[in-house]
Amino acid sequence: MPQTIQPAVVGATGYAGFELARLLTRHPYAKKPVLFTRKGEAGTTAKLDELYPHVSGNGGYPLEPFCWETLKAKGVKVLFLATPHEVSREWVPEAVKQGVHVIDLSGAWRLETPEYRAIYDFKDENPEAAAKLMAQAVYGIPELHRSELKEASLVANAGCYATSIILALAPLVRAGLVDLNHGVVCDSKSGVSGAGKQPTQKTHFVEVAENLSAYSVFNHRHTGEILEQLGILPEQLIFTPHLLPIPRGILSTIYVRLNSVMSGDAIESCMRKFYADSTFVRIFPAGKLPQIQYSLHTNYCDVGFTLAPDGKRLVVVSCLDNLVKGAAGQAVQNMNVMFGWNEEEGLR
Amino acid sequence: MPQTIQPAVVGATGYAGFELARLLTRHPYAKKPVLFTRKGEAGTTAKLDELYPHVSGNGGYPLEPFCWETLKAKGVKVLFLATPHEVSREWVPEAVKQGVHVIDLSGAWRLETPEYRAIYDFKDENPEAAAKLMAQAVYGIPELHRSELKEASLVANAGCYATSIILALAPLVRAGLVDLNHGVVCDSKSGVSGAGKQPTQKTHFVEVAENLSAYSVFNHRHTGEILEQLGILPEQLIFTPHLLPIPRGILSTIYVRLNSVMSGDAIESCMRKFYADSTFVRIFPAGKLPQIQYSLHTNYCDVGFTLAPDGKRLVVVSCLDNLVKGAAGQAVQNMNVMFGWNEEEGLR
Amino acid sequence: MPQTIQPAVVGATGYAGFELARLLTRHPYAKKPVLFTRKGEAGTTAKLDELYPHVSGNGGYPLEPFCWETLKAKGVKVLFLATPHEVSREWVPEAVKQGVHVIDLSGAWRLETPEYRAIYDFKDENPEAAAKLMAQAVYGIPELHRSELKEASLVANAGCYATSIILALAPLVRAGLVDLNHGVVCDSKSGVSGAGKQPTQKTHFVEVAENLSAYSVFNHRHTGEILEQLGILPEQLIFTPHLLPIPRGILSTIYVRLNSVMSGDAIESCMRKFYADSTFVRIFPAGKLPQIQYSLHTNYCDVGFTLAPDGKRLVVVSCLDNLVKGAAGQAVQNMNVMFGWNEEEGLR
Amino acid sequence: MPQTIQPAVVGATGYAGFELARLLTRHPYAKKPVLFTRKGEAGTTAKLDELYPHVSGNGGYPLEPFCWETLKAKGVKVLFLATPHEVSREWVPEAVKQGVHVIDLSGAWRLETPEYRAIYDFKDENPEAAAKLMAQAVYGIPELHRSELKEASLVANAGCYATSIILALAPLVRAGLVDLNHGVVCDSKSGVSGAGKQPTQKTHFVEVAENLSAYSVFNHRHTGEILEQLGILPEQLIFTPHLLPIPRGILSTIYVRLNSVMSGDAIESCMRKFYADSTFVRIFPAGKLPQIQYSLHTNYCDVGFTLAPDGKRLVVVSCLDNLVKGAAGQAVQNMNVMFGWNEEEGLR
Repeated sequence: MPQTIQPAVVGATGYAGFELARLLTRHPYAKKPVLFTRKGEAGTTAKLDELYPHVSGNGGYPLEPFCWETLKAKGVKVLFLATPHEVSREWVPEAVKQGVHVIDLSGAWRLETPEYRAIYDFKDENPEAAAKLMAQAVYGIPELHRSELKEASLVANAGCYATSIILALAPLVRAGLVDLNHGVVCDSKSGVSGAGKQPTQKTHFVEVAENLSAYSVFNHRHTGEILEQLGILPEQLIFTPHLLPIPRGILSTIYVRLNSVMSGDAIESCMRKFYADSTFVRIFPAGKLPQIQYSLHTNYCDVGFTLAPDGKRLVVVSCLDNLVKGAAGQAVQNMNVMFGWNEEEGLR
Repeated sequence: MPQTIQPAVVGATGYAGFELARLLTRHPYAKKPVLFTRKGEAGTTAKLDELYPHVSGNGGYPLEPFCWETLKAKGVKVLFLATPHEVSREWVPEAVKQGVHVIDLSGAWRLETPEYRAIYDFKDENPEAAAKLMAQAVYGIPELHRSELKEASLVANAGCYATSIILALAPLVRAGLVDLNHGVVCDSKSGVSGAGKQPTQKTHFVEVAENLSAYSVFNHRHTGEILEQLGILPEQLIFTPHLLPIPRGILSTIYVRLNSVMSGDAIESCMRKFYADSTFVRIFPAGKLPQIQYSLHTNYCDVGFTLAPDGKRLVVVSCLDNLVKGAAGQAVQNMNVMFGWNEEEGLR
Repeated sequence: MPQTIQPAVVGATGYAGFELARLLTRHPYAKKPVLFTRKGEAGTTAKLDELYPHVSGNGGYPLEPFCWETLKAKGVKVLFLATPHEVSREWVPEAVKQGVHVIDLSGAWRLETPEYRAIYDFKDENPEAAAKLMAQAVYGIPELHRSELKEASLVANAGCYATSIILALAPLVRAGLVDLNHGVVCDSKSGVSGAGKQPTQKTHFVEVAENLSAYSVFNHRHTGEILEQLGILPEQLIFTPHLLPIPRGILSTIYVRLNSVMSGDAIESCMRKFYADSTFVRIFPAGKLPQIQYSLHTNYCDVGFTLAPDGKRLVVVSCLDNLVKGAAGQAVQNMNVMFGWNEEEGLR
Repeated sequence: MPQTIQPAVVGATGYAGFELARLLTRHPYAKKPVLFTRKGEAGTTAKLDELYPHVSGNGGYPLEPFCWETLKAKGVKVLFLATPHEVSREWVPEAVKQGVHVIDLSGAWRLETPEYRAIYDFKDENPEAAAKLMAQAVYGIPELHRSELKEASLVANAGCYATSIILALAPLVRAGLVDLNHGVVCDSKSGVSGAGKQPTQKTHFVEVAENLSAYSVFNHRHTGEILEQLGILPEQLIFTPHLLPIPRGILSTIYVRLNSVMSGDAIESCMRKFYADSTFVRIFPAGKLPQIQYSLHTNYCDVGFTLAPDGKRLVVVSCLDNLVKGAAGQAVQNMNVMFGWNEEEGLR
């Protein structure tokens, strides 16, 4: 049995951070996580189980204000940041300098292309250092970056929408089967926890229930991740997110045209081969489509498809839990790969 | 056909205020309502249909900042206040002085008993004048106060929970059938719009969906209304509100012991007699219970019951739409009575 | 004021039929509707208000078994069929022969193209007569077929999904602005009432809540309607319906490529011009998108769009209430046009 | 480490049975469960993961038709019945005769009092044998019957509503603190999975969503369990179940009068003492109430309360997940006690 290591989480009072705290608590090779709060964080309290009585009775989850000295004193080996983009952008350089492995759940370190990153409008104090760090950061989808993750000191955990789309398309795009010039349409629908814990008009129960709405058409922040990871151009992608009246879960319906006529079997086989060593992507048999329910509270990304009778027009459907495979679960999976453990530890 | 009058609404951007604006727009004897905003009101905009595109296409709902001169200039005859308690408490004296009829949807003028009113902690500038006004205010449930409403210049529109409980119990309590010393238990469940439009942790979709919670046990503000209107004592009532994962609707399950053994027919007949002239209370046949769905988007309060085989223990269930019979619809009904119109005008 | 006529509804116990019965009851030129039940209809009872206590207190809605003699005896002038496809297919010829105007809410008479109609697998007793009748049937979207409706004796009320897609695309497609060869993608999401009142595994609360699923990809019955009405070819359309965890409402997200670079203003103006005389289609300003909530319980179809910065890729979003503009409301609107009344009668 | 044993489940395609199959699969001392189907069971298929793709990817869950020979051949040591009442009533005698331990999730063996059992209307082939077996059956709430469970061969797993009410009241009632003559009111609200997987009008999404309804007032089947386990009389209890628009979870709001004036501390202390050795009951601090969300997907029953200022009127609120602590989780907990394992095995 491997040695246990000390993890820490900043932002455990948010939805993804809380999910992460829970997962780490049950992880066989992780010591009980140190839970840090940030100044100004909403709903700060002395104990996580006061905010989330869900976990009371398990021995308590004390929270403490973040400070670099505590980090060092506690021997933290891996730091998870469930913090706003700008906070992650500011803190990561110091953490990496201190030799701590970082898994950042924000969008701060995901995008190499300056044009795509512009949407975040980061003000780096030391642009040169930031650029260098950016070059070292590994995009955190283990199914695509397993070997780089093993050497990584900074992981940019992938976005929830982006994960659902990238995992669905990577096998076909990388095999050159998709007519990219025709364009790819990604119609995604997400539960409300994706919008975070801060109460806003947009997340008010009465505004969401009995409703469905599209938003950020042509300008959602996850667009750049999808483009970079799939190696496609902005004009080749339309990505439309929608807000679903459910707490969690994402379903992406993806429309592509194939370069040549194919059979359902060939497509299924292409996908299965690509994910042969990846237990957390479940490929559905041709014509059978995943539903959001199937992957809730798991680290699975489910992928299915229906092929038109013409053998060229393809509808791919992928589902995942935005707080697990779309955030906290994937973060743990990334940690597992980083530290050379079985990818499923703490996620079964 | 009666002459039309000019109504005005303050607070039309909130859930109850918006419902009221819509109802008034369709009312045959009301001119198009003047819609006032208050300083500091959330989501203020130039037109109501920008905030609520639901009503766009109907000719526009301009909003304007409240001011007494405009009120006078527009010839406003009846002023609806969908404002916070303390605002209503402050504004009503001036409005009444100006000779405008006021229908206040807040809790500011509902409670005569100082002990019950203490929960609001009002700071009246002129306590004597407030006391005098309080004595003139009519509690706004037309089924119980029809004749006083005809003479009223200030109506304190009843609370949503209170309406559902008072209408269910009034016939039995007034007929002396209920063993009050045994105590009355009111277990009420409400949709989220009852908590208002301001986004809070409590109204965040993720906190409400897939959930149910009790709150304000033994100290909800509507308790005093129930006590006063039914003429019972604090120690005779337990009222427990719950927050339901639905946008609107209230169901109250009410438990009483009868003073003597009765039949279901006798109870039904007592209720039907009491509401013989009240089309907005629907009495269900013995053993058939109302559900929230039945009264949504209507001004009905539905009342049904089940009697134990012993003929003494009685469960009464009442349902209404908290934004209609529990707020805006009842306000229009009160206006109808005030101005001598058919009680159903604008509410069919 | 026009003379009143006698309507009848078969299938008023279903969701669309009930909505229709309610609308007709409030229609100024329609007598109280005769409500017929069919043999084998689910939940048959003597009175509609026993099944739907929502409408109790309004004087009762007696139901009676359908029979041609009663139809004649009651002087029914317009017959609404909210019946299964095969029942409508069988009954309409006799009704038309009897000189009754028919508005059929099923898919029985919507499709002229035999290939598209094949999906229903109708067995016509008299194929020739059916073909003749088919040629007379008018597709029931008043915004597109107003003048034919005025002469029609048989209206094939449009499908709910089809209405949301056709109304969104008709202005652009008819103006020749859409690159049809590139293909049109329609990603639609519907509330559960669209699946009918019959309880099935698919409509079980536990299977729908907290979930989203795509179904009938490449083979949904409404596909033919969209193709015929827009005049496009099967290979030019992908239509993917999804089942939303809400009771009612449809949102369609539609992806097209324009033939040439356009401005948002030009698109908005094209749409506004097309619907200049159609109060029930609300065009949203460029960049502002409709949400399901806005049109619930109304006869509106809301249409908005976002144009990519390249001015060629367009996302159109349309919303409607599947039981109103997608079924019962549109049926009443069709009746209004048929009888020369104001299109908004009974629908305001 | 203890020896592993072979469990079997009949009825794994239902909601509680499926939850049970999942829990057993992860149990450290249970072999992979044999999953039996019954003739006539809904949705029968060759593999459970076809019906519930949730669990696909875990190696498959083959289903086979139930037969006594297979039971013996597979060396089944403990048989879980997630079957209808009458099936359990019929099968248990044979299973016990064969020396298999039985944990029955139905109501078949829960009630000793013939008057309470009458509601099920069982037709026992051998009434004498049934009576003898009934006397041996242990009511399956480990917190109350731990020592008897250790010797049991037949466990009647408790009802979901009953568990939520009994666990909330047992400490107070057994300590003689409750004025039983005054009567106990239990107002319970449950998610829809409690109604089973069979689609009915009652479980149709459109009938449940946006709704709340009370049902089975004064005649719900769980009443007898509550009476027997708490040792109270029928006239001392009112139990009103309600159907909540959520998939799972129960909240019971319970109203009692205390025999004498007490402090919140004394009540909390009474409860904590009673459950000192029971990790699956979480007592909340006085005035803090549990919500359904806190215990979802766990085996916890959460209990909190608010005491009136008079120190005599008490509102107790308890929450649990009806499929876990209210069914499958409690069944596993019962198995753990039966076989002398740590009560938390497989349930952490």
